[in-house]
Amino acid sequence: MAIKPKLKIIPLGGLGEVGKNMMVLEYEDDILIIDVGLMFPEEEMLGIDLVIPDISYLLERKEKIRGIVITHGHEDHIGAIPYILPQLNVPVYATKLTMGLVKVKLKEGKALHDAKLKVMATGVQFPVGKFRVEFFPVCHSIPDAVGIIIYTPIGTIVHSGDFKLDYTPVDSKPTDLSRLSQLGSSGQGVFLLLSDSTYAELPGYTPSEQVVAETFDRVMAEAKGRVIVATFSSLVSRVQQIIDTAQKHDRKVFIVGRSMTETARIAMELGYLHDPEHVLGKVDEARSLPHNKVVYITTGSQGEPTSALVRMANRDHPHVRIMKGDTVILSSTPIPGNEGLVNRTLDNLFKQGAQVLYSTVSKVHVHGHGSQEELKLLLNLVKPKFFMPVHGEYRHLTYHAKLAESVGIPRDNIFVIEDGDVLELGPQGGKKAGKITSGNVYVDGLSVGDVGGLILRDRRMLSRDGMVVVIIAVNRQTGKLVGKPDIVSRGFVDMRESKDLIEASRDHVAKVLDHAGNHPAEWSYVSGKVRDTLSDFFYERTKRRPMILPFMVKV
Amino acid sequence: MAIKPKLKIIPLGGLGEVGKNMMVLEYEDDILIIDVGLMFPEEEMLGIDLVIPDISYLLERKEKIRGIVITHGHEDHIGAIPYILPQLNVPVYATKLTMGLVKVKLKEGKALHDAKLKVMATGVQFPVGKFRVEFFPVCHSIPDAVGIIIYTPIGTIVHSGDFKLDYTPVDSKPTDLSRLSQLGSSGQGVFLLLSDSTYAELPGYTPSEQVVAETFDRVMAEAKGRVIVATFSSLVSRVQQIIDTAQKHDRKVFIVGRSMTETARIAMELGYLHDPEHVLGKVDEARSLPHNKVVYITTGSQGEPTSALVRMANRDHPHVRIMKGDTVILSSTPIPGNEGLVNRTLDNLFKQGAQVLYSTVSKVHVHGHGSQEELKLLLNLVKPKFFMPVHGEYRHLTYHAKLAESVGIPRDNIFVIEDGDVLELGPQGGKKAGKITSGNVYVDGLSVGDVGGLILRDRRMLSRDGMVVVIIAVNRQTGKLVGKPDIVSRGFVDMRESKDLIEASRDHVAKVLDHAGNHPAEWSYVSGKVRDTLSDFFYERTKRRPMILPFMVKV
Repeated sequence: MAIKPKLKIIPLGGLGEVGKNMMVLEYEDDILIIDVGLMFPEEEMLGIDLVIPDISYLLERKEKIRGIVITHGHEDHIGAIPYILPQLNVPVYATKLTMGLVKVKLKEGKALHDAKLKVMATGVQFPVGKFRVEFFPVCHSIPDAVGIIIYTPIGTIVHSGDFKLDYTPVDSKPTDLSRLSQLGSSGQGVFLLLSDSTYAELPGYTPSEQVVAETFDRVMAEAKGRVIVATFSSLVSRVQQIIDTAQKHDRKVFIVGRSMTETARIAMELGYLHDPEHVLGKVDEARSLPHNKVVYITTGSQGEPTSALVRMANRDHPHVRIMKGDTVILSSTPIPGNEGLVNRTLDNLFKQGAQVLYSTVSKVHVHGHGSQEELKLLLNLVKPKFFMPVHGEYRHLTYHAKLAESVGIPRDNIFVIEDGDVLELGPQGGKKAGKITSGNVYVDGLSVGDVGGLILRDRRMLSRDGMVVVIIAVNRQTGKLVGKPDIVSRGFVDMRESKDLIEASRDHVAKVLDHAGNHPAEWSYVSGKVRDTLSDFFYERTKRRPMILPFMVKV
Repeated sequence: MAIKPKLKIIPLGGLGEVGKNMMVLEYEDDILIIDVGLMFPEEEMLGIDLVIPDISYLLERKEKIRGIVITHGHEDHIGAIPYILPQLNVPVYATKLTMGLVKVKLKEGKALHDAKLKVMATGVQFPVGKFRVEFFPVCHSIPDAVGIIIYTPIGTIVHSGDFKLDYTPVDSKPTDLSRLSQLGSSGQGVFLLLSDSTYAELPGYTPSEQVVAETFDRVMAEAKGRVIVATFSSLVSRVQQIIDTAQKHDRKVFIVGRSMTETARIAMELGYLHDPEHVLGKVDEARSLPHNKVVYITTGSQGEPTSALVRMANRDHPHVRIMKGDTVILSSTPIPGNEGLVNRTLDNLFKQGAQVLYSTVSKVHVHGHGSQEELKLLLNLVKPKFFMPVHGEYRHLTYHAKLAESVGIPRDNIFVIEDGDVLELGPQGGKKAGKITSGNVYVDGLSVGDVGGLILRDRRMLSRDGMVVVIIAVNRQTGKLVGKPDIVSRGFVDMRESKDLIEASRDHVAKVLDHAGNHPAEWSYVSGKVRDTLSDFFYERTKRRPMILPFMVKV
């Protein structure tokens, strides 16, 4: 019997990190891509706007790519599409709302006109090369999210997408457990499960969105003044809860901020946000209403400096000024790294006299990913032969692997791999088979990928101790120094208060150049010498190491 | 009857922020200072090493200052002493261990020889100018911590220091509640309470250190290999718990890292750390022991890049390499802003195959500050006439004020003030009376205070988009441009891959200078023009705004 070719599974993003999710399935001459997400830059990625996956591997195999399937409309699953789709030019498959959000991204990136976008309903099978694909509903913090069933020549694969098991979701459907258990118990069963690990650290169950609804209800009933809710613009279900609760308490709702308004508009157009009683109003109308009839929804729950909430808290928002009597709800938890910005925003809101509810002190947010018991339940229903944790930092993947072991999957059938690892899987088992090029591509301004390690290293050095420019004039004929070198610094010392230091450094360079008189023409030697001695000179006197840039001008 | 002079209370640090605690009490010609702390720089304070309080107000009144009293030996209460004490040269009062740590600070800062250091026991009254001062024991995450009773001409003040109410502390004494309740019920009672607000957001009680001891006990009993505990070097009681538990399970303890070793040495010398059975060993001995007999204690629980734990996790520690079978405990919670570093460290430990316990998943840390019920208990015992929350960001102070109101202190008798506010307090009441100079003084390398807003703004700009140096050679006689300008950039674009852009920018500058031919001598005009047009030129092509530095050289 001929040996069947192996299936390759290659994560290009999202495994060993949170964000820029992108997964490649490759079988013979067919490649299927799942999600094309972005990541927001980490602290040390100075000046970077966005981070997208490195797709070198795909560019070398463009002719094999049959399509992209998208699980849901969050930035970390669709955000890199405008940068990557034009390079691949393959069909994109997604559900209705997700595709609406993909379109917005493509339009912003001026990449919409050539795109082949195919809206797919759940429960329908469609071919993507040798693969057959079927979406199934999952509950997540955005409506129309799906998991993916992929029928491959070597067996059925289930990819959970981002999911949790909320049995009383607001407007998204509950995760389709019966379809999964049906798959798990029928015929060949499920060959491989790829499942969301984001909250694999947390014991128990993720609470239902109803918990948040109860808080909203209490606040809108009791607040004597305006209620201002800040949340993620993609959290359509949270917006729906606010509309529903406001209607109950006879308040009008006003959406403030561009991205929030845009997402709400699309969700409403496509039927994922409902406002039967016309509770939503135009911001201008808010002013003429009594305060206890007003609810604002806005972005800024992460303390983003240009967001509406932060500007309100700083008293420089054009329309809304926080005042005593307002109740502000930050309906989110800080993303790691944002705590400082969030805390500053909270403090400023308190200073304006507002009552402020946030995740430390109130039940104002539940997250969108399943906790340990939900992950175990999924494993129990799907009963996969092989298991691979996806979506999470390394410790999340490790925890998820332990959960899988605890429900009876043999350790050898569990694969913890990271971005760029190649997993080769055949009917009898799989193994890591090498590593391909993967990693971060930086978007900075208009350019994609030109900022690399060198530029970031320079920015890091400049950010710490600034820089010093040294202009050295030498006689064109003799190669001798003309006058003293000029020295200017930025971000290093206060030039006005450090005149002595700067003067001394000019003398120092002059002396060094004098001694180097034998090598007048060898600029690389001279500039290296100036850099080294000046660096030591400044370090000794200031314990700082500015970047030193010597220039020679021939006069 | 003559009107009594008022008491002024002026926070110079720690109110409206967490860190650099420093408080001034002023009555007529006498000033008493409580604590002289530092703060670690926030993310946007690029290149800054430390932040200390601005003491302009004190320098203008040096002759009035009678002394400094210190509540405990944490950095945010003693860290600025080596910078500030030499400028004031007044006596410092503290308990034994605290003074030991103050001495280390002063020695490091070469400021020990002139210092007038007075070790004071708890329960003893001593005069500081017109004030009489008495320390009382409080339980905190470092031994020998105290609160302060200050007898002033207008009434008795109680300052809680940093405290919690652990009735089964490890080696520090429990907070002396009976002394406080005695003060609260006797004669005049307490005029003013200043109390720690750090955890005023948290409901309930802070758990006892015993919770952590139980985790240590379980881990050391069950671990088949080495146990490595990372915590704060100042957490002497945690070190004691580890020694005690290791002794019980017949393990030896090895301290790794300079600051941890130094603190343990002082604590042992002064009798605050006990090792009766000689469980502590020298690191070299560890290698010859079976793994299940070894415990390491180290720093790095905040993911500090140069700490021992991080180097172990990255496989570049000279002595200890993490391996399968090791159990690593991060006995702390991430300080806001450090989450990214901590998570990276966790992931690297998991990748080495270690079992890792941390605050998200295990009871490995309890914090050192009282939660809401403890704060209310203190208010109830002390029964102050006036109340002022101290130590915390604005929302913590606000929460603490609400707690005080809830236990019956009239709102008018509660003062929420921030750094630099002056509270004037007389027998009948108090009010905010203006604002004095206060704020952050930056320590950067050897210099204190020379880095200000301008340098930080430059560093910020340089960190985002780098910089471009433009060298313009002009004829000394005619003032005309000689050749094309030279352009060099760092941290902006890849100079090798952006040759066209740089060439085009040189032509652009040449053209601009040609048009500006009428103003050859007015360098400020020319340089401004070059800066503006080049900035626009680059922004249009890259959407980045590097710092642009034009230089003119006359040839």
